[in-house]
Amino acid sequence: MTLAGEGKLLRIFLGESDRADGRQLFEVIVHLARSKGMAGATVLRGVEGFGAHSRIHKATLLELSEDLPIVIEIADTSEKIEALVVDIDALIERAGCGAMVTTERIDVRRYRAGK
Amino acid sequence: MTLAGEGKLLRIFLGESDRADGRQLFEVIVHLARSKGMAGATVLRGVEGFGAHSRIHKATLLELSEDLPIVIEIADTSEKIEALVVDIDALIERAGCGAMVTTERIDVRRYRAGK
Amino acid sequence: MTLAGEGKLLRIFLGESDRADGRQLFEVIVHLARSKGMAGATVLRGVEGFGAHSRIHKATLLELSEDLPIVIEIADTSEKIEALVVDIDALIERAGCGAMVTTERIDVRRYRAGK
Repeated sequence: MTLAGEGKLLRIFLGESDRADGRQLFEVIVHLARSKGMAGATVLRGVEGFGAHSRIHKATLLELSEDLPIVIEIADTSEKIEALVVDIDALIERAGCGAMVTTERIDVRRYRAGK
Repeated sequence: MTLAGEGKLLRIFLGESDRADGRQLFEVIVHLARSKGMAGATVLRGVEGFGAHSRIHKATLLELSEDLPIVIEIADTSEKIEALVVDIDALIERAGCGAMVTTERIDVRRYRAGK
Repeated sequence: MTLAGEGKLLRIFLGESDRADGRQLFEVIVHLARSKGMAGATVLRGVEGFGAHSRIHKATLLELSEDLPIVIEIADTSEKIEALVVDIDALIERAGCGAMVTTERIDVRRYRAGK
């Protein structure tokens, strides 16, 4: 895969407990990204936050919250990100969850596939 | 809330042990963001890093560091972010902590409030 | 250190198990960033993801994956980031790992060194 130069970073903010098609929404999105051949996806779990619901989610050592904020980051060419945004938008619509989806311009300086 | 088109992502890099007004600084910032009606805030805790102090923070399974790096991410319209930056700047100044605050341009592609 | 105005955010996506010079690659990068006097570095560990290898990494409570996705974030002036990119590129090349390196434009609103 050739991937260098201007690209886009897609970020999806949602909740860990959001579900789609009977599965966790963030897992459905990661698998969708993989099936579309995206260069990579990373799921980050926050320790606290609030989102579309304006709830405060918080994890402590003793009380493991089941609805912590999740950020999914997917970087690729502008064209592939734009196509994926359409699919993810439809997926979130179907799931009926609160979510924020953002894109930003990035420069891909290196993309090297491993052995 | 209508939130679409060009916006800003505010990111605040600080330490988990930084305090303001007798509370953890990152919690004070999240509650400030919520009280200002921001669309969302996510607190990410790093596993290692260094910041304004140039100390290396690191978490291992056996040794739970109490001063890991924290990144708070808040996305909203440019106007709301700019207003919040002023408040957060004053808060960090009062707390006397080392911190980095950055903004970057984003495109908000979807913001859907949950049920 | 004076650091305000336009800057760059460098992000490096790699795997937790990637190694260089007999050490974890992400640790080598953090120490390199520190030795070059960068303003800060934060290492975030994802809970799931895939990258250059297109493998799905996942952490559960019972099964601690040893190859979770890692994102390193380093913010500084454009000049210092560009110089570091050259070093990190050579380091990843030598390590022979799959990795993605991106840069994006940011505005540094505040950088305050701690006590």
